[in-house]
Amino acid sequence: MKQYALSKSLSLKFDDAVSKLPEVLSTEGFGVLTQIDVQGVFAQKLQLPFRRYRIFGACNPTLAHRALTDTLYAGVMIPCNVILWESDDGTTTIAAVNPMQASAALAEPAIAELARDVLGRLERVFAKLG
Amino acid sequence: MKQYALSKSLSLKFDDAVSKLPEVLSTEGFGVLTQIDVQGVFAQKLQLPFRRYRIFGACNPTLAHRALTDTLYAGVMIPCNVILWESDDGTTTIAAVNPMQASAALAEPAIAELARDVLGRLERVFAKLG
Repeated sequence: MKQYALSKSLSLKFDDAVSKLPEVLSTEGFGVLTQIDVQGVFAQKLQLPFRRYRIFGACNPTLAHRALTDTLYAGVMIPCNVILWESDDGTTTIAAVNPMQASAALAEPAIAELARDVLGRLERVFAKLG
Repeated sequence: MKQYALSKSLSLKFDDAVSKLPEVLSTEGFGVLTQIDVQGVFAQKLQLPFRRYRIFGACNPTLAHRALTDTLYAGVMIPCNVILWESDDGTTTIAAVNPMQASAALAEPAIAELARDVLGRLERVFAKLG
């Protein structure tokens, strides 16, 4: 688990984390290309309750362009999922795919270097969210 | 590469593949939650040209609900990326993340079983697109 995903418990409330995340991602050059309200999808499609859970698709266009220029298959890892969920104690957990793990199977040195860059940016986003 | 991504060359033109994909995904229980026009993103954000390239975020709500009930970290793999790009010869390539590889690091038997189910569905989607 740990190797595949980065995660951290935040002291922010869920709504505050949802509204703060895009601005913090932008300080590391990530735009938010997609946003999925998982609780809403399950309510609408399955009529099932679920905790508050949001999946953001974050993308740094410059790094994505480099990756896709190296290999068109890099798109299987774009955008980077950054996730927020409401924990049972009312705090918020943030998690993200570990780009080093996600890219390992591509086995291309240029992609590994880009993944290391993305990992550093995601770690700074986590730190900035406190 | 092969181990990480499924891919296939389609005889469809890019526009035809883009319009046909959502309907074929739905026959296997996938909705399209997100769609990224990569060429458009690069044109807008970087003023750089790129081939026609579309990333679809496909999700089977029932399977996603089971995965997230097993582990909240499963969201790093949701939705499944299914990608179309225009090849140099004017045909279209389809690629998707291999859910077996993507889920391997989670090391949970229940998730591996769901990933096998998703893999079978994606393989049928590829076959149905010809």
